[in-house]
Amino acid sequence: MEWKNFDKLEAYRKLESLKNTVKLQEVMTGEKGADRVRAYQVPMAGGLTYSFAAKEVDDDIIATLQELADEAQLTEKYKALYSGEMINTGEKRLVLHQLTRGQLGDQVIADGVNKGEFYEAQQKKAAEFAIKVHSGQIVNEAGEAFTTAVQIGIGGSDLGPRALYLSLENWAKAQGALKMEAKFISNVDPDDASAVLSQIDVAHSIFVLVSKSGTTLETLTNEAFVKNALKEAGLDPSKHMVAVTSETSPLAGNPDYMEAFYMDDYIGGRYSSTSAVGGVLLSLAFGPEVFARINRGAAAEDALAKNPDVMKNPAMMDALIGVYERNFLGYGATAVLPYSQALSRFPAHLQQLDMESNGKRVNRFGEPVDYATGPIIFGEPGTNGQHSFYQLLHQGTDVVPLQFIGFRNNQMNNDVEIQGSTSQQKLNANVAAQIMAFACGKDDSDKNKEFRGGRPSSIIVGEQLTPEALGALLAHFENKVMFQGFVWNLNSFDQEGVQLGKVLAKKVLAKDTDGALDAYSRMLGIF
Amino acid sequence: MEWKNFDKLEAYRKLESLKNTVKLQEVMTGEKGADRVRAYQVPMAGGLTYSFAAKEVDDDIIATLQELADEAQLTEKYKALYSGEMINTGEKRLVLHQLTRGQLGDQVIADGVNKGEFYEAQQKKAAEFAIKVHSGQIVNEAGEAFTTAVQIGIGGSDLGPRALYLSLENWAKAQGALKMEAKFISNVDPDDASAVLSQIDVAHSIFVLVSKSGTTLETLTNEAFVKNALKEAGLDPSKHMVAVTSETSPLAGNPDYMEAFYMDDYIGGRYSSTSAVGGVLLSLAFGPEVFARINRGAAAEDALAKNPDVMKNPAMMDALIGVYERNFLGYGATAVLPYSQALSRFPAHLQQLDMESNGKRVNRFGEPVDYATGPIIFGEPGTNGQHSFYQLLHQGTDVVPLQFIGFRNNQMNNDVEIQGSTSQQKLNANVAAQIMAFACGKDDSDKNKEFRGGRPSSIIVGEQLTPEALGALLAHFENKVMFQGFVWNLNSFDQEGVQLGKVLAKKVLAKDTDGALDAYSRMLGIF
Repeated sequence: MEWKNFDKLEAYRKLESLKNTVKLQEVMTGEKGADRVRAYQVPMAGGLTYSFAAKEVDDDIIATLQELADEAQLTEKYKALYSGEMINTGEKRLVLHQLTRGQLGDQVIADGVNKGEFYEAQQKKAAEFAIKVHSGQIVNEAGEAFTTAVQIGIGGSDLGPRALYLSLENWAKAQGALKMEAKFISNVDPDDASAVLSQIDVAHSIFVLVSKSGTTLETLTNEAFVKNALKEAGLDPSKHMVAVTSETSPLAGNPDYMEAFYMDDYIGGRYSSTSAVGGVLLSLAFGPEVFARINRGAAAEDALAKNPDVMKNPAMMDALIGVYERNFLGYGATAVLPYSQALSRFPAHLQQLDMESNGKRVNRFGEPVDYATGPIIFGEPGTNGQHSFYQLLHQGTDVVPLQFIGFRNNQMNNDVEIQGSTSQQKLNANVAAQIMAFACGKDDSDKNKEFRGGRPSSIIVGEQLTPEALGALLAHFENKVMFQGFVWNLNSFDQEGVQLGKVLAKKVLAKDTDGALDAYSRMLGIF
Repeated sequence: MEWKNFDKLEAYRKLESLKNTVKLQEVMTGEKGADRVRAYQVPMAGGLTYSFAAKEVDDDIIATLQELADEAQLTEKYKALYSGEMINTGEKRLVLHQLTRGQLGDQVIADGVNKGEFYEAQQKKAAEFAIKVHSGQIVNEAGEAFTTAVQIGIGGSDLGPRALYLSLENWAKAQGALKMEAKFISNVDPDDASAVLSQIDVAHSIFVLVSKSGTTLETLTNEAFVKNALKEAGLDPSKHMVAVTSETSPLAGNPDYMEAFYMDDYIGGRYSSTSAVGGVLLSLAFGPEVFARINRGAAAEDALAKNPDVMKNPAMMDALIGVYERNFLGYGATAVLPYSQALSRFPAHLQQLDMESNGKRVNRFGEPVDYATGPIIFGEPGTNGQHSFYQLLHQGTDVVPLQFIGFRNNQMNNDVEIQGSTSQQKLNANVAAQIMAFACGKDDSDKNKEFRGGRPSSIIVGEQLTPEALGALLAHFENKVMFQGFVWNLNSFDQEGVQLGKVLAKKVLAKDTDGALDAYSRMLGIF
């Protein structure tokens, strides 16, 4: 296995020569456009399909992307990762998040532990705990049932679990399967914790404290905030809190918590939703079976990513097209546009996943690279975005590739027909219309009303946003980001870029400041 | 007054010759860095300050930006706008949103109406209505008080009012001044309306239907959704709904609504929060006096924007630096990073405001321009973002300018001291630390741990996020976007880029499809 910089590969030069050869305004028009839609799609797990007909690729480019995949040994590197090689070289760690949802290769033994069994045991422990809470075996001091679960965590301990919870909250309600309502406290802004505490009944709440190291400043601060509130309500915090942490952290085996669930250094925060980091909360909210269904969807998607054929590996296809757009077409951002209100915070999760993994300018050997790496990721649900920032996407001076997501059915089975169509039909008519408007544009003698087109998009389409579909969606993007990191020769699994700010913030709090840092600290009223 | 393309101005060539002359790593270090922080700030209204010390400018560049402001006649054009000239040339409309909060120049008479008086009358009507609801003069069919106000609107009828409501919800609660809880239905996704309806007690809810034209598909669909729910609950929809619309719309003077409040074509959706579009809901939620305080903050900020001196005009300074970054330093995006959980949706409002106003490639005469215009806007609150996408901002291959926002005090006056500092101190220590980390970076022999710095930011700092501060913040960005539109010679007040998608969506719903549009429609299960 070889780790080479992207611009040292044969395929790099070939792709360079192929750039700007596909005009969407031409290839997406007429019956050949329909043929493209039928041909340019890859099946995913969870009933999903990845459709890339409206991307600026053709058979030649796809063949060259396949050559790139082969030359960069993408599936071999994936195999090395899930087989337990030390892929996170900077931190000298394995990368095992896929193992939380399935066994893709040989068993991984590390530090004398069978890691698959370890993760499974923690999920089982979370499931048993949730069942005891739901059945009334675990109750509050007054012997009453817990009704609310509150996650206290930040970054990967917040965005992924929050996005997943919101994705299924209404689905679960519609099925009468919402076991407990979930809330989230993340920001060190004291107003965040205060606001959540004002919305809940602390006497009937379980707080899930999530910090791998057990030292995350925001999370420990918010824990203290919550403990104060519990004490003020005459309650014993240790009867209301559980911890999700590593076995070596100060939170492990600590009598301050009813229970502790473990993860380890081989699961990065932004990849941890399918571990106990998401599992405890989601099992409490929806029941362990729903959490298991999310993981089954993710496992099935992970299995597809093993296929070396790009036409059968949706994450790899998505990754390669993204690289082509970033490095040869020069696009600096990607907009994620789910036509599903349930996915309202999914773009924020992808923003962390992608930008924290591949927003790096040195390769895995610590050498600066000479090509662009991870793009900016942002997005909001459609149709809302259409009435907001789509103006720039259609008529702005820069091209922004688009990732649509849509479902044939809604989650709550409640709809109205107005002017001859349901809301669901209107929603999906809009996404179909947008793809075509972006791709083909429209001439107009009034240039203010002209749409130049040539604005590429892909869409992931599913039957319904179920737990399996959600798991597949989650894993798809994790694997996409991983493959792009392999192409760019990055270590996608560390995050050294977050360190300097932490160091300087500590200096401020220690009043060890001078120059501009001191001036800003005074401006902000810190001292 | 002359409307010239930006690249035809003298100042354009001068700025081109000055680019990349300021190295933040040098100018922000040591005591000269502290001097910069003290010198490079402009007072705003509402107790705010715009600080641009960590931007890549110096006295030479600022002097040239002043020349640009003069040459492009920015304050003259602003005066023309608020004096009632037809600035929105594409739609042949005046642009009068500033008039909803104050009289900046002469009275504006249009269509035989004194527009200032008209807007004021609508605000007064909203205030009287809200007071009657709060005092129990207006009640539901059972004679009971209304407790919840639900805005039904999309785009500008949603994002601005929602951002403002969330900005003050906890502030109001902490003061015992939250009169009614507010909710929002926007997306045509039926799950959005279903979810909100499942959270509220419709019998005690007032629905505020907001559509200027009275024909917005999403909004009318959601209205029907809500009417169904009211009827199913045995309630009379006309006793639960008010309309905010134009006087010529089908919603005006319609017995289906308890009351109608009017706006007109001279206030664009994304600029409408201080009109009845925001005013009815915010007056119901917080009382008319709080809404008036928001508008007073905005009016004071609008007045500052009249000053031709860039060192005394914060919106103009912000606009000019943004143009310099976009057109000469080549930065394609701006991240908005409020260190205040209350501003969690403020970046989404700014995303619409900026991207819909200036995401355009033709000038106000319909001629394509040869320079970059509006950037991508995205953002999330800090400290959350630090644990997410800041990795790319610090160490990615592209530079992204940053707009921080911070307050010396929190809103709820509830804090804890841990490890020698309060949460508020930790929050603000982080923003001070981040500004310096981005500007100056840090050398390291391990390039993976190196921060190159040179990443520019500005910060708006205030005492507390009060209604006045919020109004000033809102107006600041409206005026910034307006000034940038003047520099780029754009019409910032139309949005032709949203039309094509609407036309094609109608074709899909009429089953008038072929080619790829038909194939996508089938994939999405529309027919």
